[in-house]
Amino acid sequence: MAAKQGAFVTEITPRSEDFSRWYTDVIRRAELADYSPVKGSMVIRPYGYAIWELMQAELDRRFKATGHVNAYFPLFIPESLLRKEAAHVEGFAPQVAWVTRGGDEDLEERLVVRPTSEAIIGTMYAKWVQSWRDLPILINQWANVVRWEKVTRLFLRTTEFLWQEGHTAHETEAEAEAEALRMLGVYKEFVEQELAMPVLDGRKTDSEKFAGAVHTYSIEALMGDGRALQAGTSHHLGQNFAKVFDIKFQARDKSVQFVWQTSWGMTTRLIGGVIMVHGDDSGLILPPRIAPHQVVVVPIPRGNWRETVLPRAQAIADELRTAGTRVLVDDREEYSPGWKFAEWELRGVPLRLEIGPRDIERGQVVLVRRDTREKLPAPMDGLPERVRALLATLQEDLFERARRFRDERTQRAATRDAFRELLEGRPGFVIAPWCGAADCEARIKADTQATIRNIPLDPPSPSGPCVECGAGGQVDAWFAKSY
Amino acid sequence: MAAKQGAFVTEITPRSEDFSRWYTDVIRRAELADYSPVKGSMVIRPYGYAIWELMQAELDRRFKATGHVNAYFPLFIPESLLRKEAAHVEGFAPQVAWVTRGGDEDLEERLVVRPTSEAIIGTMYAKWVQSWRDLPILINQWANVVRWEKVTRLFLRTTEFLWQEGHTAHETEAEAEAEALRMLGVYKEFVEQELAMPVLDGRKTDSEKFAGAVHTYSIEALMGDGRALQAGTSHHLGQNFAKVFDIKFQARDKSVQFVWQTSWGMTTRLIGGVIMVHGDDSGLILPPRIAPHQVVVVPIPRGNWRETVLPRAQAIADELRTAGTRVLVDDREEYSPGWKFAEWELRGVPLRLEIGPRDIERGQVVLVRRDTREKLPAPMDGLPERVRALLATLQEDLFERARRFRDERTQRAATRDAFRELLEGRPGFVIAPWCGAADCEARIKADTQATIRNIPLDPPSPSGPCVECGAGGQVDAWFAKSY
Repeated sequence: MAAKQGAFVTEITPRSEDFSRWYTDVIRRAELADYSPVKGSMVIRPYGYAIWELMQAELDRRFKATGHVNAYFPLFIPESLLRKEAAHVEGFAPQVAWVTRGGDEDLEERLVVRPTSEAIIGTMYAKWVQSWRDLPILINQWANVVRWEKVTRLFLRTTEFLWQEGHTAHETEAEAEAEALRMLGVYKEFVEQELAMPVLDGRKTDSEKFAGAVHTYSIEALMGDGRALQAGTSHHLGQNFAKVFDIKFQARDKSVQFVWQTSWGMTTRLIGGVIMVHGDDSGLILPPRIAPHQVVVVPIPRGNWRETVLPRAQAIADELRTAGTRVLVDDREEYSPGWKFAEWELRGVPLRLEIGPRDIERGQVVLVRRDTREKLPAPMDGLPERVRALLATLQEDLFERARRFRDERTQRAATRDAFRELLEGRPGFVIAPWCGAADCEARIKADTQATIRNIPLDPPSPSGPCVECGAGGQVDAWFAKSY
Repeated sequence: MAAKQGAFVTEITPRSEDFSRWYTDVIRRAELADYSPVKGSMVIRPYGYAIWELMQAELDRRFKATGHVNAYFPLFIPESLLRKEAAHVEGFAPQVAWVTRGGDEDLEERLVVRPTSEAIIGTMYAKWVQSWRDLPILINQWANVVRWEKVTRLFLRTTEFLWQEGHTAHETEAEAEAEALRMLGVYKEFVEQELAMPVLDGRKTDSEKFAGAVHTYSIEALMGDGRALQAGTSHHLGQNFAKVFDIKFQARDKSVQFVWQTSWGMTTRLIGGVIMVHGDDSGLILPPRIAPHQVVVVPIPRGNWRETVLPRAQAIADELRTAGTRVLVDDREEYSPGWKFAEWELRGVPLRLEIGPRDIERGQVVLVRRDTREKLPAPMDGLPERVRALLATLQEDLFERARRFRDERTQRAATRDAFRELLEGRPGFVIAPWCGAADCEARIKADTQATIRNIPLDPPSPSGPCVECGAGGQVDAWFAKSY
């Protein structure tokens, strides 16, 4: 714990007053991350990294359960490889870091610091795949990537970030499509179950899809300020990369075919999403399943508490740990209980467990929920089960609260005026019919800053004519301003 | 499994004939790693990466058990930061990759792709540390690093590699020294218990220490060809970095002091060490504790085996898995049992479990040890316990075999002639008295290519005068040619 001696928990800007400053204040005061001397790069501090480790473990478990394995590919990509796929290079070349010198020598060919790994992985798959028997390849990589960003924001947009990128190769188009949708489903389940963050799964429009993909699926969440956050993407790459990297195989019918590919990724920006979906004026609220400390035990220092209260607090913590709960006992002398309450609220610990001499007399403790601040006296008997049940309830309640918020902030528009009025009002999703033309999409973006976040999977018939041009609507799209 | 259809396991060069070619053959045929189109960078393939994941889990568990937490610091380091510590920059500047361009612009200040992170982490610690109450900081990072190497070799020396780097800051010199030794102990225990690789722990001479350290501890293993491999290092950095990065704190006595630091690291080169310590002419031999598959079940295809043998094989595999053993059932139709035996020997799976119709009649299976090739019929009753015990025995036997080999290849020399003769003969460790002068060390290196690998911790009195200059010996040092 690196909290400074004597330094009281400094005020954080209220969320309602300035959402953006609140967000940054929470990250820095909760010691999730810090600015670094490298422009646009951040340091993920131990508390923030512990959240990421819990996310990684849960995602990795799901990847392996669906037959994927991990591997590691080089950080550097020779410029010529990146340039092979035209749309890909056009999308990424303007925002990469270039290595031009190694040791004492200028390089003959510049190297790109990977912004994503389709090019380098495609090159390797071309070596590894020869027969349909070598397929599918289902590989994931946990790695750092670099995109040269002009405007950065902690967790949400940084020059370097951590992510996982899945890269798969298949015999048929149908298999690749099924894989892209399967991983979208894994992402949705992970984000909703672990991060308690409701998401809309759907498909991106052509103008929003990944550079080089046939189409991109994404899950979109709504932040506490009503702006959308792309929380994960899954791309069907078709044979685009296979053709330029020459990833061919002998098919079952002996013909030579190009493979069909997917790629999919999730990043440390999800931590930013968790902050913005669940946090409040007092700071962070962490969903129990990704909270480094699910319970903080605060012994109330009365009399010779180190001999009386503390051993009991430690014993309770051990009991909870044995039952699989992550517990921290804050036994620091130099801070008052009140200070500790505020500190752990700021850091978003889902449950506080208070225990003092009088509680011990009564054979109870006091549990305090971070989300509702409800105080719940609980008998010491059966405490581990009670705590686990309460954490599960809290996890569900966070999800429900976020879902209600999202639903309240999702409105429908049928006409151009109504649509534009809604986009100028309280931010949120606006569902509106769209003709499918990139022109209309671009004009809406230019005028309102809102983009189509997703076209729902299996969309119903359009509810009317396009809200931009009035031509026949093709589909009801979800619009929002986004991060 | 990406084994090519029809492609028989191609011969690997015998170890005795050409150790270096054997090493590369094993890596490529066992699909541990592959060359990439980026000069000096390798791809760690899924089977190799699965070994690394098992190593990571065991190391990470030990780091956390000793109070360390993980974090993540930027990949890029501004040139000016690297240049702050004179010895450090002298050691690393000649072998770094330089980023000179980001997006469409030349950078005002060049960025180094981290070769190690003392500089960037020191800068952050200076922000985070103010009082003795903020100490110790016990942070580890799992990351990729880049060192521009002219001559590379898979796993052992590559331009980019994966590692962990611990960076700690303490109130006193004694605490930092204790930490450096504690982590050396963690490394030794990890390598000996998990990798079955005996190591000599000791201290590096000044000429071999880390650039910027006060002193460096290391563990040194002996490979199957008699050359030494540095398997892990732990540095006491003193106040060198604290002074240049201004990492100060108010001490208990209210005076302002610089912190005392350590750093310590282990890398993917350990995988190379495992290959070279345990492997044989048939390929890899993996210690069970880091084997992705500890047991491969090969059903013998007689008659309608898919209905008779296979279900029994699957049931046994499930039983073993329930008991915590990592098991693969190789039920591929297109390969013969003989092919599978050779394939999984090549890939170093510690135990093979053969099961056919006759075994089922007899209520037994046949277990075959990868290291000794012993065939051990075993009743199906109590198989999970039997397998676990056998894997534990195999793990110990691998360690003992490596220890015996190391001891046989460790000799003592008392005179200059004897010393040089030993170094020209069969490679291994040569223990010899040394006067402590860098000159003597340098001359020995120039003439024989052998370096002092370690000075043992708590060394006994020197056994005689320096084998190079004949002056009074200061200590008996361990010499060897090394990777």
